[in-house]
Amino acid sequence: MSFYDAVVPAYLQMLNSLTGLLTKAEAYCEARKIEPAVLLGSRLYPDMLPLTKQVQLVCDHASRGCARLTHSEVPSTPDTETTFAELKQRLAKTVDYVKSFTPAQFEGADAKDVTFPVGAGRTMTLKGQQFLSAFSFPNFYFHAVTAHGILRHNGVEIGKRDFLGVS
Amino acid sequence: MSFYDAVVPAYLQMLNSLTGLLTKAEAYCEARKIEPAVLLGSRLYPDMLPLTKQVQLVCDHASRGCARLTHSEVPSTPDTETTFAELKQRLAKTVDYVKSFTPAQFEGADAKDVTFPVGAGRTMTLKGQQFLSAFSFPNFYFHAVTAHGILRHNGVEIGKRDFLGVS
Repeated sequence: MSFYDAVVPAYLQMLNSLTGLLTKAEAYCEARKIEPAVLLGSRLYPDMLPLTKQVQLVCDHASRGCARLTHSEVPSTPDTETTFAELKQRLAKTVDYVKSFTPAQFEGADAKDVTFPVGAGRTMTLKGQQFLSAFSFPNFYFHAVTAHGILRHNGVEIGKRDFLGVS
Repeated sequence: MSFYDAVVPAYLQMLNSLTGLLTKAEAYCEARKIEPAVLLGSRLYPDMLPLTKQVQLVCDHASRGCARLTHSEVPSTPDTETTFAELKQRLAKTVDYVKSFTPAQFEGADAKDVTFPVGAGRTMTLKGQQFLSAFSFPNFYFHAVTAHGILRHNGVEIGKRDFLGVS
């Protein structure tokens, strides 16, 4: 197995399953006459980020993870989405972007330095494998699972199998 | 980097950060005169699992992940914990267990078959890397992030930095 196999399929699985969660959330809003903006703006606590931002961050961590690990130009995507359809488009574009990488680009990337911003003008440098394990994956899953939690907490009929993308 | 580096540090980071989250949750209960059992039994939705079970499952996915990937005997731990102290003991024991593995045990494990139960008497067989990426990590992070979400939703003053274990 190559380092590509440790990175790309993991991102793709959640990007795709999150698309499925949003499809169910959209149908739930329609069936219950819930304004989609209400669910899209829902949070687990007032100082946490709303559903829309959680999805945008999942996309960012996947695309930037691939870019940083392969020392490609890091994409910057404006957060303009305000509907389920737009968020699903962003997920679809992120899937396309992640799929555009090749195993060759990840060759040896696990042992190469990655320097990345960690807020407040600071950067951190880790080996590729450590960047993936200690920063990218925990953040990526954090926002994906929190999105699932927001939907679940609001009564959308989904479960862990939807989160895993196996149902 | 070896396959060990892709597995063990990721599990340890969250097991340790979850211990920190529980310490803050325990202090929060004391300060606010909240019965710990209330927080330990909290859920994000009635058909989701309570905090205690989320923590137990984080431990199980880490310990069983290591065991299955290295073709070691898979440990089975009874879910007997009813207090923050007991849950932190379980996390500490899981940390010790995960730390007991060596890089040599993971040598070549990414490309070896892993057969594991997926419920209802069925099993699935995947290569080690796929088992890690598609099953173990998504489940492990699912329960860790959901535990964080339950605490956050109940007002415990923690944030993503606590979840990442960097604060």
